[in-house]
Amino acid sequence: MWRPFFQPYHLIIVQDGDPSKTIKVPEGFDYELYNRNDINRILGPKSSCISFKDSACRCFGYMVSKKKYIYTIDDDCFVAKDPSGKDINALEQHIKNLLCPSTPFFFNTLYDPYRAGADFVRGYPFSLREGVPTAVSHGLWLNIPDYDAPTQLVKPLERNTRYVDAIMTIPKGTLFPMCGMNLAFNRELIGPAMYFGLMGDGQPIGRYDDMWAGWCTKVICDHLGLGVKTGLPYIWHSKASNPFVNLRKEYKGIYWQEELIPFFQSVTLPKDCTSVQKCYIEISKQVKAKLGKVDDYFNKLADAMVTWIEAWDELNPSGAKSGELSNGASK
Amino acid sequence: MWRPFFQPYHLIIVQDGDPSKTIKVPEGFDYELYNRNDINRILGPKSSCISFKDSACRCFGYMVSKKKYIYTIDDDCFVAKDPSGKDINALEQHIKNLLCPSTPFFFNTLYDPYRAGADFVRGYPFSLREGVPTAVSHGLWLNIPDYDAPTQLVKPLERNTRYVDAIMTIPKGTLFPMCGMNLAFNRELIGPAMYFGLMGDGQPIGRYDDMWAGWCTKVICDHLGLGVKTGLPYIWHSKASNPFVNLRKEYKGIYWQEELIPFFQSVTLPKDCTSVQKCYIEISKQVKAKLGKVDDYFNKLADAMVTWIEAWDELNPSGAKSGELSNGASK
Repeated sequence: MWRPFFQPYHLIIVQDGDPSKTIKVPEGFDYELYNRNDINRILGPKSSCISFKDSACRCFGYMVSKKKYIYTIDDDCFVAKDPSGKDINALEQHIKNLLCPSTPFFFNTLYDPYRAGADFVRGYPFSLREGVPTAVSHGLWLNIPDYDAPTQLVKPLERNTRYVDAIMTIPKGTLFPMCGMNLAFNRELIGPAMYFGLMGDGQPIGRYDDMWAGWCTKVICDHLGLGVKTGLPYIWHSKASNPFVNLRKEYKGIYWQEELIPFFQSVTLPKDCTSVQKCYIEISKQVKAKLGKVDDYFNKLADAMVTWIEAWDELNPSGAKSGELSNGASK
Repeated sequence: MWRPFFQPYHLIIVQDGDPSKTIKVPEGFDYELYNRNDINRILGPKSSCISFKDSACRCFGYMVSKKKYIYTIDDDCFVAKDPSGKDINALEQHIKNLLCPSTPFFFNTLYDPYRAGADFVRGYPFSLREGVPTAVSHGLWLNIPDYDAPTQLVKPLERNTRYVDAIMTIPKGTLFPMCGMNLAFNRELIGPAMYFGLMGDGQPIGRYDDMWAGWCTKVICDHLGLGVKTGLPYIWHSKASNPFVNLRKEYKGIYWQEELIPFFQSVTLPKDCTSVQKCYIEISKQVKAKLGKVDDYFNKLADAMVTWIEAWDELNPSGAKSGELSNGASK
């Protein structure tokens, strides 16, 4: 199903689990494949920051990519259809979202003002109509919604059938649950913030990889004046993961997040944090200072955040610091 | 068109302009009609706070109503159809919006989590899932969008044909352009903030009545922990007002709003502002202190805001202070 949509692009496949297994990639795709041995070889001791046996391992791909726009997708996602029955080209919509500005400083009631047939409504300040560069495009899911284990258990039959024909900017100062199932971002603007944390094998938590990345990313986008969009495109999510397994992975996250959200709501970054890397290191310090007492896990995570940035800069040594205000994010 | 939808409700008609003219209300409606003579008689010297020859006069109706839920609509709005071709019962949807909670503290990517077929997504803190009481339901418009005069002039043929099947909470801390064309609110929770200002006859500005009310209302809702929803229902907006006339009414507002938005973004209300009235009086003081220097008009407006509250309390003398936290807005 994805062939016509993915074939024009370069694929990076991060193979999780047993590296001796062979993944067969269908013919005709331009791809790189990395398994755990590759990650260990490339990153050396810094490979400790890349999770194992968890979807969080995908962020290794963000680090080694040389492309400007990244799209990441789960293995149980299929091509969805729009209400007219036409296959949705998810990548095309994500790229549209990333190429047109965001409006984080004031809410537009007709949603994305840059879409055909829409504009800024009466009362929208003209000085804000230029918008800001869009760093993240968060797509949604038809069929199986992205619910946590308790909600999956309570509503096993719920399906998302509502196609909401909208794209919108998540306002500045507002956090959101960023799902990695159908997600695109501008690597030059925000790449180093897209760290999916320590999850899975040997860690006390799973299924919070994308959430963690989303909270860090949103705080940094707000600080650097970058935009986050959510809405279209939809993908078709076919298989709900096992809610009992999910509950085991999630349960610490479910109570930790009650402390994480107030923490991220209160994070402020100093003015001299002018690059994504600097912002990210600053957040890692605040994680250690304020979340270390919640659980020792956050001390390890804070260290891994630093390792991640070190590894990122090692693999991306060019003078072009991601997200540097003088570079991509023109104000 | 509206008869089947409006007939079950009580109507308050505020007749603008020449009071000697007779408005013919079709048979079968339960209504009260007020013209300028009535307003002057009922409010005496305080009638100065009610605008004349401007849609802002409608807020007199909010003040004299004895109902909990208010719906206000422009005279060029008709019943819209949903994508299946069915007539939209706008009032029913507004009442649904007002009866179910809002979620201003964290963004839900599947929009209103209380709607059938939707819920809170993974990563949404459980402590926030109860939501807060909804004070305002802001509906949208198919056909003629609510554009300002410059946008009307530039895009005379633009029509809104996109039916977005969503309702959402406008996050805390985010301002929005509240349009009075298709608007409902809980009078007990937020009524006294719904003052449509000094517009039209004898005033240097028009077409900012609903915007002014929306900015004050949103700041107060954020302070009191109340919610503002936007999205469904749609009405059909048939007649674009004359853009040249609108430009004359709006042009001061268009540059003033560049100062008004930062002002409202920076308004903070002290803790002892525990009722809508107290919040509103506090805002009026800040308007005088900070916007008086933008134009003397804002000194007059600040005085009118105080007069409005005095008039409101005179006509609504019961012990039940609107929006008092101990009363309606249970936390």
